[in-house]
Amino acid sequence: MTTPDPEPGRGLWVTFEGGDGVGKTTQAALLEEWLRGQGRTVVRTREPGGTEVGVLVRDIVLHHRGDIAPRAEALLYAADRAHHVATVVRPALARGDVVIQDRYLDSSVAYQGAGRVLDATEIRDLSLWATEGALPDLTVLLDLDPSSARARLDADEKPFDRLEAEKSEFHARVRAAFLALAAAEPARFVVLDASRPPGELAADIRSRVAPTP
Amino acid sequence: MTTPDPEPGRGLWVTFEGGDGVGKTTQAALLEEWLRGQGRTVVRTREPGGTEVGVLVRDIVLHHRGDIAPRAEALLYAADRAHHVATVVRPALARGDVVIQDRYLDSSVAYQGAGRVLDATEIRDLSLWATEGALPDLTVLLDLDPSSARARLDADEKPFDRLEAEKSEFHARVRAAFLALAAAEPARFVVLDASRPPGELAADIRSRVAPTP
Repeated sequence: MTTPDPEPGRGLWVTFEGGDGVGKTTQAALLEEWLRGQGRTVVRTREPGGTEVGVLVRDIVLHHRGDIAPRAEALLYAADRAHHVATVVRPALARGDVVIQDRYLDSSVAYQGAGRVLDATEIRDLSLWATEGALPDLTVLLDLDPSSARARLDADEKPFDRLEAEKSEFHARVRAAFLALAAAEPARFVVLDASRPPGELAADIRSRVAPTP
Repeated sequence: MTTPDPEPGRGLWVTFEGGDGVGKTTQAALLEEWLRGQGRTVVRTREPGGTEVGVLVRDIVLHHRGDIAPRAEALLYAADRAHHVATVVRPALARGDVVIQDRYLDSSVAYQGAGRVLDATEIRDLSLWATEGALPDLTVLLDLDPSSARARLDADEKPFDRLEAEKSEFHARVRAAFLALAAAEPARFVVLDASRPPGELAADIRSRVAPTP
């Protein structure tokens, strides 16, 4: 596989993927802390909701009362993505920063395509149109059995949003879709067993971002 | 050309297109009044903003402070359209109602494609993906020199939104794009000189919706 190059002077784009409750936020924070310690400028961001426009879009998708037509939902996510990549990700990479991002197009393909009624290839094509073909240097897939992820979320006692409230069978399909995406693009993905201790996972991720000689 | 059939029992979908200030609202109201007098059930609607989701999307597109990336804007319009066609237009047509709609995909192609930086064919394809290929039975293009339309809007003394505030050269390109769309699909379009008296225009539109024997 190709290994991302974290040399200062060129940007590096790392996305975290996986179901809710797998530890994406924890690992993104640990990677950010380590990279800052290495002197890198880091932009931490997310989809949906990584821009002011994206917050408005995210609010429609996650909190609208009543159903949203499946293609409308996919297009809203793609709109958020188009604006986010154009106004946050590309400028940061052009400055030579590291972009660490919670969810990107693989989430759309896994949730919308495999999990719902739309064709996965069409969803991917839509995202690639939205972003003029932007793909991360590295995508970390944190893989976890949905029932373990559920238990983590229950422990948090946070209210569930609309997507989180959907049933476990759906989450199993999403997990399978993520694994299939990783298998199709082994050069971009690293798949980690998210049930392992966070410190071990963080070390693995660091070694993929900046392998020691 | 094919003529729409307003027989009760099957739906009829009429869209009004053209720049701001050409009289779309007036003509849509006159057509609605006449069709109701004929015993038809009429759904008057619009894009963007014809649904609750669409109102939220329209608010982002028209009133967000700061630029929206061009592809994001196109995708937001497409999301509004997807939801509107799935939840308003198709159900109304299935009931046998007449749908009279202010703006549809021709506006997106004219404003986004010809007027801005995006490819018109891609914008059209995006709308057709959003709506699973839904096209109106009849599209009335109210054609008017942009400076005449501007004078009408000024007379209203309404505050201009973001699109209305753009310069007259842009409106001239939009007008040309609408005319090109009409020329490419003569069976679906009727082009009317919007500087004519409203009563004459209304009579022409009625004759296309329900030609007298």
